Amino acid sequence: MADDKPTKTVIKQGLTRRDVLTGPAAVGAVGALAAAAVGMSASPAMAAPDKGNVGPGELDEYYGFWSSGQAGEVRIMGVPSMRELMRIPVFNRDSATGWGDTNESLKILTDGLMPETKEFLAKRGKRDYENGDLHHPHMSFTDGTYDGRYLFMNDKANTRVARIRCDVMKPDKIIQIPNASAIHGLRPQKFPRTGYVFANGEHRVPLVNDGTNMDDVENYVAIFTAIDGDTMEIAWQVMVTGNLDNTDADYQGRYAMSTSYNSEGATNLVGMMESEMDHVVVFDIARIEAAVAAGNFEVHNGVKVLDGRKGSDLTVYIPIPNSPHGVNSAPDGKYVMINGKLSPTVSIIEWDKIEAVFNGAEPRSAVVGEPELGLGPLHTAFNGKGEAYTTLFLDSQMVHWDIDKAIRLYNGEDVDPIIQKTDVMYQPGHNSTSMGETKEADGKWLVSLNKFSKDRFLNVGPLKPENDQLLNIQDGALEVVHDGPTFAEPHDGIIVRRDIVNPLNVWPTDDPFWSEATAQAKEDNVVLGDDSVVIREGNKVRVYMWSAAPMFSMEEFTVKQGDEVTVYISNIDDVDDLTHGFTLGDHGVCFEVAPMATASATFTADRPGVHWFYCQWFCHALHMEMRGRMMVEPA
Amino acid sequence: MADDKPTKTVIKQGLTRRDVLTGPAAVGAVGALAAAAVGMSASPAMAAPDKGNVGPGELDEYYGFWSSGQAGEVRIMGVPSMRELMRIPVFNRDSATGWGDTNESLKILTDGLMPETKEFLAKRGKRDYENGDLHHPHMSFTDGTYDGRYLFMNDKANTRVARIRCDVMKPDKIIQIPNASAIHGLRPQKFPRTGYVFANGEHRVPLVNDGTNMDDVENYVAIFTAIDGDTMEIAWQVMVTGNLDNTDADYQGRYAMSTSYNSEGATNLVGMMESEMDHVVVFDIARIEAAVAAGNFEVHNGVKVLDGRKGSDLTVYIPIPNSPHGVNSAPDGKYVMINGKLSPTVSIIEWDKIEAVFNGAEPRSAVVGEPELGLGPLHTAFNGKGEAYTTLFLDSQMVHWDIDKAIRLYNGEDVDPIIQKTDVMYQPGHNSTSMGETKEADGKWLVSLNKFSKDRFLNVGPLKPENDQLLNIQDGALEVVHDGPTFAEPHDGIIVRRDIVNPLNVWPTDDPFWSEATAQAKEDNVVLGDDSVVIREGNKVRVYMWSAAPMFSMEEFTVKQGDEVTVYISNIDDVDDLTHGFTLGDHGVCFEVAPMATASATFTADRPGVHWFYCQWFCHALHMEMRGRMMVEPA
Repeated sequence: MADDKPTKTVIKQGLTRRDVLTGPAAVGAVGALAAAAVGMSASPAMAAPDKGNVGPGELDEYYGFWSSGQAGEVRIMGVPSMRELMRIPVFNRDSATGWGDTNESLKILTDGLMPETKEFLAKRGKRDYENGDLHHPHMSFTDGTYDGRYLFMNDKANTRVARIRCDVMKPDKIIQIPNASAIHGLRPQKFPRTGYVFANGEHRVPLVNDGTNMDDVENYVAIFTAIDGDTMEIAWQVMVTGNLDNTDADYQGRYAMSTSYNSEGATNLVGMMESEMDHVVVFDIARIEAAVAAGNFEVHNGVKVLDGRKGSDLTVYIPIPNSPHGVNSAPDGKYVMINGKLSPTVSIIEWDKIEAVFNGAEPRSAVVGEPELGLGPLHTAFNGKGEAYTTLFLDSQMVHWDIDKAIRLYNGEDVDPIIQKTDVMYQPGHNSTSMGETKEADGKWLVSLNKFSKDRFLNVGPLKPENDQLLNIQDGALEVVHDGPTFAEPHDGIIVRRDIVNPLNVWPTDDPFWSEATAQAKEDNVVLGDDSVVIREGNKVRVYMWSAAPMFSMEEFTVKQGDEVTVYISNIDDVDDLTHGFTLGDHGVCFEVAPMATASATFTADRPGVHWFYCQWFCHALHMEMRGRMMVEPA
Repeated sequence: MADDKPTKTVIKQGLTRRDVLTGPAAVGAVGALAAAAVGMSASPAMAAPDKGNVGPGELDEYYGFWSSGQAGEVRIMGVPSMRELMRIPVFNRDSATGWGDTNESLKILTDGLMPETKEFLAKRGKRDYENGDLHHPHMSFTDGTYDGRYLFMNDKANTRVARIRCDVMKPDKIIQIPNASAIHGLRPQKFPRTGYVFANGEHRVPLVNDGTNMDDVENYVAIFTAIDGDTMEIAWQVMVTGNLDNTDADYQGRYAMSTSYNSEGATNLVGMMESEMDHVVVFDIARIEAAVAAGNFEVHNGVKVLDGRKGSDLTVYIPIPNSPHGVNSAPDGKYVMINGKLSPTVSIIEWDKIEAVFNGAEPRSAVVGEPELGLGPLHTAFNGKGEAYTTLFLDSQMVHWDIDKAIRLYNGEDVDPIIQKTDVMYQPGHNSTSMGETKEADGKWLVSLNKFSKDRFLNVGPLKPENDQLLNIQDGALEVVHDGPTFAEPHDGIIVRRDIVNPLNVWPTDDPFWSEATAQAKEDNVVLGDDSVVIREGNKVRVYMWSAAPMFSMEEFTVKQGDEVTVYISNIDDVDDLTHGFTLGDHGVCFEVAPMATASATFTADRPGVHWFYCQWFCHALHMEMRGRMMVEPA
């Protein structure tokens, strides 16, 4: 920095948009070559809807929102075609979009981190974590069904929760959850709306985890967190007994419920399997809110933490056989299924029987059914017709069963709840039915997210894909109709009717996504998408330009070695799918600029010489000519 | 560091593999729960091979190796199903596999960088570039067809070339190409074998690009590079006139040829379009090798650079209408197609007529055909039956034409070379036929990599997918049978018969991929995959453990705040598809350990307290219990 208050000078004034609109013939000639919009060709589709085939040019019936596990992104799938329509980088780095490198994405990735985390990352030479383990993507609800506003998702690796705006399909908030360790299960409140997003801290750690009490395993706690889905601020946290695994909410707005697979509180494998019974924890939202209002909490890291361990009146613990895993609310609003994992059973709990347990009834009195379904039941999905589909991890099967019959069996009647089983390939984890986690479950498609693919695809080396299988469940069927290889590792997914999701084609030019760029431009007297200007302020240089196929508004700019350069690109092509990009050669700088968006990146110009920048999103017949030079004068 | 030569102490001795094999009953019980291998279920396939449908459990006929453009990875596709079977991170960062964070991947990403690049990156707080723009993946050849050894690929963004080992489908070499700017076109030598990998430096820059001669645009040069495909060392470079775009080699081992789209040497769009004619550059390999042997080169950055600019006897320049783009050798070995981009023509050059040009014949005498095919011809693929398929970017069409008729037309005969055209959706760039860039082109499938998808899929927001369409070209057909959405942005792909590719299922335990870990273990008297040991050397701590579903061989380890910790994990599950992972919570550490592999990452333990590590690759019914604690004692 030259001095305390460096002079600010416009060192270059390039083209404005008006110059071009009224500009020289040569530029007009370029415009004439613009990629013409092409009408849809009526390529006849060979629809065979019961097999899930979607012909060329046909649209899928459903959006699938898939997690990607350790890949850290969210994927938009088409269902039933099982095609991956889009990747949304969330916790990961992405070379194409510049996610994790642009100023806009870094703001989202870092704003929600605790100061000590920022400090820790800086010591690792990083600004954000750069990885994530994204298991559970779920959409915001209104009145028991999806409302198309947001998707919420967890990061197990680095204890975070993120939100994606469904209008632009980009994350707008990522927050670190203090006090907890490894956010695993995550679900939004279903009623009256989201509302809360419930997030399970999986591992037990000391509540003040500062290294002073590491051997006091007895007092390790897992933390359940309620986040305000509108503000993405933490409303409250509850300490619990045991590890927290998956979670779900009811359809009445009264309870959330989490499975717990290590009620033993052990720290090793053998210890975690000791007890025959573990439990689910039920959180009474009204009681917790009353306790918060009454001040019955401690504050840790700025968050209100309540004590909901065994014996608390904020929670009840319902015993469930060995290490329950998935928890799934049925669309009827009456029942919730607890999947046994090491027990061959699914335990059916009736929501309406829980109030009595809070009032002193025997906890197991809320269990109204417990059918034996097979080995390794992990998750249950629904068809909205009183039937359920449960994945059997060890049996590598999907079991289709009747909820009412399971309850009658539990009541002593001689009925078989199992309707049919079919093999899936291999070792299924989560499953998902179309609209199945809402009151609008429609019983058309079922997806089985299988953890192993083994021999189902061409051999691609030691690392194999997962296998996401599509099953047709219409008219009582249970037929595997498609094998879908996926990169590591979709844990969970939801299948949403297409009329619910209505994204934009073009960004609003005043979108808050780049509010800092807008503010800086205003301060610099620059109109984004109009002016092309280079501004110097001490050793900081800001380069504002716009892009319109096939050109950037600036053919070259010059900086000095050592300058901190920020390049802002505004894409003024108000045309569907006409994304541009900005790549600065040999500088590790590369980002997406979608139609009417602005994006920016900051770097130090440390390499003297001529460096070309170019558009890396194929935009025009003259795409390769869409480039310019950064000239760096030696220091 | 405590002192100059810190003591090395075994501070922990955990389980060895033998302990477990002969170990306590509890551990045996865990083994009994191991995910059983499940036989393939004979789910009947609904094959409709002419539409490209591949039923559940059926294998694709071909491997597709796709680039991903600015996403920086290589993708393995199944053809004709068009399913993405695997992502191979190359120039990008990957959260799942830890590519760009493990010691093993960082060695590959950084070993081939120039010292000044490492210094520049260090100033940006980075070890590698972290992004790439990967356009052209091509397989090694022997005798004119694929040999299944390697894939080679370019990075346009940061001027690099990488190689993937096809036995394990991971990169093993990534090299920076000095003197050049932006490696674009890349092809391997076809005959007698690869041999050379030819790589085009696209942009013109000063040869000594140090900021002293930035205005001397006349003397900017583009650089053509020949890399030894066996050693991945640069054999030689040739300076040329004009920008270099795509490249290909002949089937006789005599020539390589590159298109040049800015023979004007301009630095802006208008200037680049001035001339009616640009050119291709032909490189005579024997003449260049003789010049190298004769010492007719300058050395820049350790590389032999020859002068092949217009007038040199190492090259000839054949004039081609406006801004040619793709260059594609026909499988007959006789012809090579130059695609006109701004000209509606494809120019057919006969390889055997080039020697005369080197000997003084008029350069255009090598052109034997120049059919007008439509607007925006970019790339041509072949069916091995004397017919070609050319993408028309502006027309959004694929044109199927007859090579012999095009030559006869050029000779004055009244014939129409165009067989048929069909619409593709929309704006196709590269195309590829099954085995089409080898002498074994078989004319079954054609893929059109379209740059715009617009309305072909459910709307996923302002950023749309590309559309990779599959066309059936059997028996004279030219029918779009599948729309394949892809994330930004496959530029090019090859389609390889499945019998040619034979990857391993399990890594060799002595693989050079982790040779540094092997050497360090030997020095530490540790047997990888057998011992579980923590070794301290000053403030450096090395943690060796192995994984076998569902456990790590170490339940916990303790280090001191500020220690530099390296964790080595050896996966001893000698089972197909039984990949494990290692994620250290809240530390940004996460990596893949495929069957029988060893992987490692290094970080500073700066956060006092209890931190859980866990396996993030779902491996077993007790997968969630597969974890342990790192205890960090406060400093």
